[in-house]
Amino acid sequence: MPAPQPPVRHAMTTSSSPTHAGVDIARIDDADRSRFRIENGWSYGFPRLVEWRDVDGFRHANHTAFLLWFEAARNRYLEAVGLPRLSADTPGPVMMTLEARYLQPLAYHDQIFVTARVRSMRRTSFIMEYAAWSEAGCHATCTAVLVLMINATGEKVAIPEAVRAAIRTLDAPVEEGSPPDGSGQPRAGEERR
Amino acid sequence: MPAPQPPVRHAMTTSSSPTHAGVDIARIDDADRSRFRIENGWSYGFPRLVEWRDVDGFRHANHTAFLLWFEAARNRYLEAVGLPRLSADTPGPVMMTLEARYLQPLAYHDQIFVTARVRSMRRTSFIMEYAAWSEAGCHATCTAVLVLMINATGEKVAIPEAVRAAIRTLDAPVEEGSPPDGSGQPRAGEERR
Amino acid sequence: MPAPQPPVRHAMTTSSSPTHAGVDIARIDDADRSRFRIENGWSYGFPRLVEWRDVDGFRHANHTAFLLWFEAARNRYLEAVGLPRLSADTPGPVMMTLEARYLQPLAYHDQIFVTARVRSMRRTSFIMEYAAWSEAGCHATCTAVLVLMINATGEKVAIPEAVRAAIRTLDAPVEEGSPPDGSGQPRAGEERR
Amino acid sequence: MPAPQPPVRHAMTTSSSPTHAGVDIARIDDADRSRFRIENGWSYGFPRLVEWRDVDGFRHANHTAFLLWFEAARNRYLEAVGLPRLSADTPGPVMMTLEARYLQPLAYHDQIFVTARVRSMRRTSFIMEYAAWSEAGCHATCTAVLVLMINATGEKVAIPEAVRAAIRTLDAPVEEGSPPDGSGQPRAGEERR
Repeated sequence: MPAPQPPVRHAMTTSSSPTHAGVDIARIDDADRSRFRIENGWSYGFPRLVEWRDVDGFRHANHTAFLLWFEAARNRYLEAVGLPRLSADTPGPVMMTLEARYLQPLAYHDQIFVTARVRSMRRTSFIMEYAAWSEAGCHATCTAVLVLMINATGEKVAIPEAVRAAIRTLDAPVEEGSPPDGSGQPRAGEERR
Repeated sequence: MPAPQPPVRHAMTTSSSPTHAGVDIARIDDADRSRFRIENGWSYGFPRLVEWRDVDGFRHANHTAFLLWFEAARNRYLEAVGLPRLSADTPGPVMMTLEARYLQPLAYHDQIFVTARVRSMRRTSFIMEYAAWSEAGCHATCTAVLVLMINATGEKVAIPEAVRAAIRTLDAPVEEGSPPDGSGQPRAGEERR
Repeated sequence: MPAPQPPVRHAMTTSSSPTHAGVDIARIDDADRSRFRIENGWSYGFPRLVEWRDVDGFRHANHTAFLLWFEAARNRYLEAVGLPRLSADTPGPVMMTLEARYLQPLAYHDQIFVTARVRSMRRTSFIMEYAAWSEAGCHATCTAVLVLMINATGEKVAIPEAVRAAIRTLDAPVEEGSPPDGSGQPRAGEERR
Repeated sequence: MPAPQPPVRHAMTTSSSPTHAGVDIARIDDADRSRFRIENGWSYGFPRLVEWRDVDGFRHANHTAFLLWFEAARNRYLEAVGLPRLSADTPGPVMMTLEARYLQPLAYHDQIFVTARVRSMRRTSFIMEYAAWSEAGCHATCTAVLVLMINATGEKVAIPEAVRAAIRTLDAPVEEGSPPDGSGQPRAGEERR
């Protein structure tokens, strides 16, 4: 008799109670926050399984698997706040820098929860953070500096105001150097964006 | 104002009404069957998104992305019918042959549904079929001949009776050459398994 | 004292003696043919390493890794015979069907040799075969039916005569249904292409 | 008539003049250093092609493709300096942190050169740096903090003296906290390793 499987939860569910009109937002609910020990300060995310394609010869999720989950979370977050679906001709995120910290390994078919948030926004660039959680807590965190760009031309694009507004309904990002007052103090290394 | 997102459904939900005691089976429900135009004859599957990691420079899902989705479906199916989680020391599937047929391309962030079924079983080998569906119908089908093997030793293992029984609750596989009567007629090319 | 490493050969070398004017063709040389036990009938290929990204939790090359090597071989072959570098707006191969046969596993950092050839050509479609070899012989073979297509529009394109001629310098493909005489006998399942 | 291909160089060649007895070291030669504009301070690396599997829907190498090339470079470097081939039961690198900086995009079939070096060593941990180069200069750099560990047990292992010696023949790493004098000044954040 096959052993009972632990209940595998919906991986790509989205909130049934969006807080922003028209935006289908994968807000973290209390059950997931508790089960996956997700810290306050994260609002957006969704569960997924560690799949066979994610593990390497050490039978742990490869370090790049985390980054692909974070990429998926980034793309869904940005679509949820109103950026068009990624294409060559529309504004999309281009990665400038990436920092990742690996805290605990993940094994094949571990049930995880991936979270994403915007930490700060400038005119055309923004900083996102990501984390991967299981019932054992946080497994990895990541910070990326991204620039909004028309991929086909390389032209930088200002983050649309509607997108900024939708991001504010999820997170409380620092907004640096925003017009009109331009008073934001750029951090080291971000001057050019 | 961000445009409304189409509702993205749960990708890894499993049935709330398992038909086999203790087995958490991702049975296809009527709503999904209708939405994704899934033919009768498929009982098991789950929705997922075409992610950025799945698409190549043609902005379509790469031909290997389909096979990775089918691998994920195979692994979840086999775990659902009672095989242990994949490891080096327990019986797991090893692929002998693969045939895939690509019918329609899939684009980034298309919502799809992946199905899996067992078509036939012999003593240690079995044939599985897979398909990928969207609201536009079937995009690809695949057939794989697999052998159950202890990966660390290469030893072939008979499909356990409890696993056979659980598979029968999902699919109606041809069972060839099963003991004790051994009356099954092997197909060409399957004699050795 | 570190142990001596086996000599790892150049993976992407191409022939220094192209047989077709202007085409830089990775013809298999006698040393590789002997070392990797490559059968006659294969003219084109190149060595590569099984990398960490290619192996899965069984510590063998995943079944899709072989297909990605074959994809790389296909792309280099087609570029060598004169197709433009893959892009959305130029004729490129689109896979219709795939058949793979897995014969022996490959382990991490095994030195392999990947071969490709064209078996037959029709007006817009062609059949390619691939194989992966090591010093232990053949590990996998694959056959793919491909159609030449402008990816952006889906328009089928006739294989250019110069490309056909370059393919003939490498392989001896059956040429079916070629204009003007149309005498080629299509095989079952290839009628439409 | 197919256009002439640019000469695609050997991707996995290793030096024919190893500087350390028994170590097969992919030392960068002068021709590659000049062609790929590789800065002094890098001794080890090898060329490779940007393959179709490396590019995403923007037709540029995905940010994780760079990291997989760096992983391949790390593994070959460490094997060259005498660490055993990666396995569960032998000392292998486990990534703690990763920092990447993306400078210029890379396109499909760009010919690149990937370099690796050890910047510093402690008892069981070390810091490696990586870079990807083309004829247009440097495209990305990366720094990783790695710990040498028996993967199956999680046990940290001191970097063997012979490996340290071989690394010194390639690079001039800072050696912090090494026995017996222990005079190395740990940097912030590295105290525990």
